[in-house]
Amino acid sequence: MKEFSIIETYFKQQSHQRKDVLLGIGDDAALTLVPAGQALVTTTDTLLAGVHFLPDAEPSMIARKAVAVNLSDLAAMGAEPAWISLSISLPEADEAWLAAFAAGIAEMTQFYSIQLIGGDTVQGPLAVTITAQGFVPPEQALLRSKAKPGDFVYVTGTLGDAGLGLDILLNKTTVKDLEHRQFVLNRLHNPTPRLLVGTSLRRIANACIDLSDGLSSDIRHILQASKCGATIHLDKLPLSRAMLESIEPQNAVKYALSAGDDYELLFTVSEEQKGKLEIAMANTSVSFTCIGQLNGMSNKLELRMNNYVVDYQTTGYQHF
Amino acid sequence: MKEFSIIETYFKQQSHQRKDVLLGIGDDAALTLVPAGQALVTTTDTLLAGVHFLPDAEPSMIARKAVAVNLSDLAAMGAEPAWISLSISLPEADEAWLAAFAAGIAEMTQFYSIQLIGGDTVQGPLAVTITAQGFVPPEQALLRSKAKPGDFVYVTGTLGDAGLGLDILLNKTTVKDLEHRQFVLNRLHNPTPRLLVGTSLRRIANACIDLSDGLSSDIRHILQASKCGATIHLDKLPLSRAMLESIEPQNAVKYALSAGDDYELLFTVSEEQKGKLEIAMANTSVSFTCIGQLNGMSNKLELRMNNYVVDYQTTGYQHF
Repeated sequence: MKEFSIIETYFKQQSHQRKDVLLGIGDDAALTLVPAGQALVTTTDTLLAGVHFLPDAEPSMIARKAVAVNLSDLAAMGAEPAWISLSISLPEADEAWLAAFAAGIAEMTQFYSIQLIGGDTVQGPLAVTITAQGFVPPEQALLRSKAKPGDFVYVTGTLGDAGLGLDILLNKTTVKDLEHRQFVLNRLHNPTPRLLVGTSLRRIANACIDLSDGLSSDIRHILQASKCGATIHLDKLPLSRAMLESIEPQNAVKYALSAGDDYELLFTVSEEQKGKLEIAMANTSVSFTCIGQLNGMSNKLELRMNNYVVDYQTTGYQHF
Repeated sequence: MKEFSIIETYFKQQSHQRKDVLLGIGDDAALTLVPAGQALVTTTDTLLAGVHFLPDAEPSMIARKAVAVNLSDLAAMGAEPAWISLSISLPEADEAWLAAFAAGIAEMTQFYSIQLIGGDTVQGPLAVTITAQGFVPPEQALLRSKAKPGDFVYVTGTLGDAGLGLDILLNKTTVKDLEHRQFVLNRLHNPTPRLLVGTSLRRIANACIDLSDGLSSDIRHILQASKCGATIHLDKLPLSRAMLESIEPQNAVKYALSAGDDYELLFTVSEEQKGKLEIAMANTSVSFTCIGQLNGMSNKLELRMNNYVVDYQTTGYQHF
């Protein structure tokens, strides 16, 4: 099967179409229009079989997750998503696999009103690379480097669910309650990019990052970029009912602190902006929790439990 | 080794820096500015070990080629390149390999005045995916679909050299002359994206495509998109001295017609624009050759040798 017929057959037809796309799939490159006054926001992420998903994972799940993790990076910049490009490495031209994968991509383009504008297919080990593009007014972008001592640290949603789901798949733990089991597996397979939260935090949050490698690992990027320290209260970490009712509290905190794949946002807000934050977040219907505060001690992460300093040997997920 | 330290250590420092990059490597996504009146041009291409390069290929060569093939797609749109994003899948964090690869990326960013704005590293089979972005005034973009019956068909440079180089590497053929051997291997390893030609063809060429899969395969994309036919004169195909002096003329024509990896531009120009073409191309110092003409017979590719119709069973490189 030829590359261009794969892309034509499975991907071009089904994508959501946007008016700012002058030329999508089918030429040497795509042509799109960035609105005046907006900066272009670009991010790229690869998911690899055996590393980021199990080799026998549902193709539509892989597609949805590959799009979601990229949109999560745009959300963390306060950006609005617009277009995605896709490169698939696939051992053989398996039509059933491609059809299911393309359906997952199409579902995401429809849901988020984004357009698939280009792609490449190669024959090789199963891997998916997506580049996502969006916009944000440049002065309103949420950076890692603009956090200030005194800022309060917030996270959206609940933490650690995806990590628990992964350990179920790897037979490292069991969750008997079927509903809870389903919940955490769904959190692993279908992360929700917090796009509306991201755009709502423009002009409110000082800094923002998405939680992909685990809270304890990701927060250090903000501390490093902003030359701050932080105190995080482990007893404040938001945990799902599924998590709380499935495993010991101490283990739940470990998942929340160190497991990856949450794709929630962590952001910092000054005392003065807390009122605006309450109002802006109410409109998103996404839960959010204050888990600590920043200070001036560069790069120092202090963890407390019931206000006592504790020591957790946790470093989050490492890529190598 | 951690992902962010890999990118920081090897890639961020060395890249050429552009003023239109508000935020490069080091946050959740990059922020860049597209000039007013220009469309954004985006393309993505993956190179895979064992498919697009030999597994033991020089890392700096892989880097240069991965950038070049993406820039070639921008050239084929008449676009000016600006930024690249990079995803590397690598079996292990091999520091010598990464340092050499990063040097190749840095060399390309300096030479083409582009900036590396983001990346991802994963542990897996050796593969490199690059997304390149650039600009073109939307009404001047060179499309595959705007060719007209009567247009003359041109190609830049010489054809088939990279294919001959590949066959040397695969021990399918030998070239005794060392200089010729070096020339065709260099054409394989260091393709030249025809960026200056691409921008010079704005307002002159009706259609353009880059030759990546082989002339006979790639020209069909223009015929299909523009609903035209073409007569191509095989005796007019531009061949290098290295090619002519190394193998039989009939084989040379086969390489020129069907081998991939040329990364020359194929473009079509109306009778009225031929004068402007001569002037514009003179400023690029790139050779160009008229190899045939388009007609109204939709999708029909006719090959002629010394004006006699010939039949070549050649389809170019297929991705699956």
